[in-house]
Amino acid sequence: MAKEITSKDEDYSKWYNDIVKKAGLAENSAVRGCMVVKPYGFAIWENIQQQLDKMFKETGHVNAYFPLFIPKSFLSKEAKHVDGFAKECAVITHHRLMNDPNGDGVVVDPTAKLDEELIVRPTSETIIWDTYKNWIQSYRDLPLLINQWANVVRWEMRTRPFIRTTEFLWQEGHTAHATKAEAVAEAKQMHDVYATFAEEWMAMPVVKGYKSANERFAGAEDTYTIEALMQDGKALQAGTSHFLGQNFAKAFDVKFMTADNKEELVWATSWGVSTRLVGGLIMTHSDDDGLVLPPKLAPHQVVIVPIPKPTPEIMEVADKIAAELKSRGVRVKIDADDKKRPGFKFAEYEMKGVPIRLGIGARDLAKGMVEVARRDTKEKNSVALDGIENHITQLLDEIQSNLLQRAKDFRSEKTTLVESFDEFKDVIENKGGFVSAHWDGTEETELKIKEETKATLRCIPLDAKEEAGTCVYSGKPSSKRVLFAKAY
Amino acid sequence: MAKEITSKDEDYSKWYNDIVKKAGLAENSAVRGCMVVKPYGFAIWENIQQQLDKMFKETGHVNAYFPLFIPKSFLSKEAKHVDGFAKECAVITHHRLMNDPNGDGVVVDPTAKLDEELIVRPTSETIIWDTYKNWIQSYRDLPLLINQWANVVRWEMRTRPFIRTTEFLWQEGHTAHATKAEAVAEAKQMHDVYATFAEEWMAMPVVKGYKSANERFAGAEDTYTIEALMQDGKALQAGTSHFLGQNFAKAFDVKFMTADNKEELVWATSWGVSTRLVGGLIMTHSDDDGLVLPPKLAPHQVVIVPIPKPTPEIMEVADKIAAELKSRGVRVKIDADDKKRPGFKFAEYEMKGVPIRLGIGARDLAKGMVEVARRDTKEKNSVALDGIENHITQLLDEIQSNLLQRAKDFRSEKTTLVESFDEFKDVIENKGGFVSAHWDGTEETELKIKEETKATLRCIPLDAKEEAGTCVYSGKPSSKRVLFAKAY
Repeated sequence: MAKEITSKDEDYSKWYNDIVKKAGLAENSAVRGCMVVKPYGFAIWENIQQQLDKMFKETGHVNAYFPLFIPKSFLSKEAKHVDGFAKECAVITHHRLMNDPNGDGVVVDPTAKLDEELIVRPTSETIIWDTYKNWIQSYRDLPLLINQWANVVRWEMRTRPFIRTTEFLWQEGHTAHATKAEAVAEAKQMHDVYATFAEEWMAMPVVKGYKSANERFAGAEDTYTIEALMQDGKALQAGTSHFLGQNFAKAFDVKFMTADNKEELVWATSWGVSTRLVGGLIMTHSDDDGLVLPPKLAPHQVVIVPIPKPTPEIMEVADKIAAELKSRGVRVKIDADDKKRPGFKFAEYEMKGVPIRLGIGARDLAKGMVEVARRDTKEKNSVALDGIENHITQLLDEIQSNLLQRAKDFRSEKTTLVESFDEFKDVIENKGGFVSAHWDGTEETELKIKEETKATLRCIPLDAKEEAGTCVYSGKPSSKRVLFAKAY
Repeated sequence: MAKEITSKDEDYSKWYNDIVKKAGLAENSAVRGCMVVKPYGFAIWENIQQQLDKMFKETGHVNAYFPLFIPKSFLSKEAKHVDGFAKECAVITHHRLMNDPNGDGVVVDPTAKLDEELIVRPTSETIIWDTYKNWIQSYRDLPLLINQWANVVRWEMRTRPFIRTTEFLWQEGHTAHATKAEAVAEAKQMHDVYATFAEEWMAMPVVKGYKSANERFAGAEDTYTIEALMQDGKALQAGTSHFLGQNFAKAFDVKFMTADNKEELVWATSWGVSTRLVGGLIMTHSDDDGLVLPPKLAPHQVVIVPIPKPTPEIMEVADKIAAELKSRGVRVKIDADDKKRPGFKFAEYEMKGVPIRLGIGARDLAKGMVEVARRDTKEKNSVALDGIENHITQLLDEIQSNLLQRAKDFRSEKTTLVESFDEFKDVIENKGGFVSAHWDGTEETELKIKEETKATLRCIPLDAKEEAGTCVYSGKPSSKRVLFAKAY
């Protein structure tokens, strides 16, 4: 069935844009680089939010909300942070428009110039630490474990829906601690939360590791990352958790009295994931027939389609199944639109990645059977109506596991251990995926490799085993392998 | 117990600010007019959001997300809208900062000037209708029933936490319809949803009415409003729902093919409530001891305080009650901090407006009793431990009802029918509250009354009965009473 989707093999990037469009996830807006997240795409994001929010609260965090705007001078307060974030950003210079004296719409009122420009937050460390300064006096005020769900803006030159947009939605956790050990433990805990969420909810396997100094967040002492592998062999940084040391406490002069009455600087973390996860979801599971969604995040987990039309007999069965599934917490939809033919509906729900399609027809019904089609494998089976709800809930679990296993297998196949730079280049060029290689630990080598291959050092895996080796580029000694890949 | 709260009678405005501060709801930020919503304040907003979102979805709406920025020219497209919203707003003129050539932090890069300025959305009708243009071709594409949760910015000169801030959080529904009747019905439906939410969840009685032409939303044909009365006798516009006619469809050229193949302009509504509701909540129920929260929106509905200290015996009982209450969906907290004395905790939870405080002491326990204190009436009772969970869930319902009834009684007392302008002025000046008066229906009279009394026409109540009368100001004939008040 022609669905106007470019095939993945032909042009992965075009395929991605086609999926985003045809599945109704997002579209470009009138504002350069900003997307409109359409209802179906937003419903996926809502499911992501809901689960993450639950996991944040279970680990002791609360939500709050800090201002959208950041005074320009704040960005300069942390030396490295300014280089990372003060460059491409939205700058507010005025606070009023006026009628054009020439009668042509509205123009900026030159008399309403701000004394100090405001920046639309690209991330909120500065405004939040300026606030924390007033909240923290004593060790009794610590830890602060706060998260915010917000929009942020980074003026990107090349954008792609969900993956990289000028405005995006995210959450940013910002915590304050009395000791270094506690802050490091927090950064690692949230790293674990992200990895668990990626694997168990998104069915997207991730490598847990930390970033090289060069790839760290601007202002961090350590950046923990989860790195996923997309179907085209490129890596996606899917979430990061930063141990910020005392850098922001220093920049904003945030000190506290310890239990034994000494004044010390506060320790910090920050951590975030964004609507980029929706892009990761698409590029982990989907195929040439459209989106494929893991059941745990699918807006509709099951769709029931009467075949060929919604008769009273069929609808009675459909309603009964739907009610029973809903009572078990399954998100189910009945499509009783009699203006559309089953074939059209099948293609539509395939495009939208609904995990299970249940076809109910009079002939099957007479035999006590219904048709169950799963989106991930495209298998279709005739299944007994009796006990169908159990079958479906089990099948949802099976699809969730299968998607994760499939993605893990793909990643294994696309992770290559290389011993020489020729091999490195060959794999990056022709096979793609993660390259596991020895590296001498210097930024110089890292940048040379990037320059010559466009592959970046994705992370130093936490589970990298100690083994003596030599750097693929410099030949210098190395004690463990790290992961390189071309990346989004 | 001194709690450093100004009394309401002494200075209501200062009392309000004290409550916001001492209950930990919000504070001013480093950015003029923008507040930080602190965790406790945000938890209330999350409860508001969760319930409203449920009500929106139950009435068939879905969520989506549209860009934060609006091209300047969009604001000029709807003639009235531009007057209402294009004036005091945040204007983005540049997209890059650079290091100051003089070495003093960062400055705006003059080469990065935008061709067209962007406005931070004060409301999203324009960007959304520009998007809807591409989504609507045929009557089959209608209705569109979309809501977004978002931040918006209006450059306010005089701000007050929650009530009026430069940036605030809100939801804005934007719907598109094939017929006028359907759009009007939608606007009225959401007006009803808001009124139901205000009364049943916030325990805040509201008058349902519509606005005079002068007080309408810029671009609306009709604005439905819910008007609440604060304890100081001033009105608070708590939510509005607009029938927009075809104004935005005209401005953005959004047409559709009807079932009989005629091209027609689309009909629109928009509706919103904001973090202002938190301000309404405070000023409807709270007292000189702090916040008073209706149980349905309280972050903690019950707090259990061991007296005087958390012994194993007391904690065993506390844990058992808490577990049973949680299983019934009650939000309960045990405060087992043994560094704080009960009296300190009592004052703190009074300040935070926790509806029920449960004191568990060894002596009471020996008699099979616990102490139950309700925040609304300050009553304390010794209650049998046996069946305490039933007692508490019933008491939560009773407190919710009592708060609504109390607020209704207050409003009745503060609603005055007047027959002359002298009486009008006297009531506005000395008694405050709603003034129900005959009005001749002209904008001229409305503005004169405002000029002379500072009272504005809050709404024409939907349930105003037809009665012959004469305008209190002009003496001209009038067929129904309308409501005036000083307002926030």
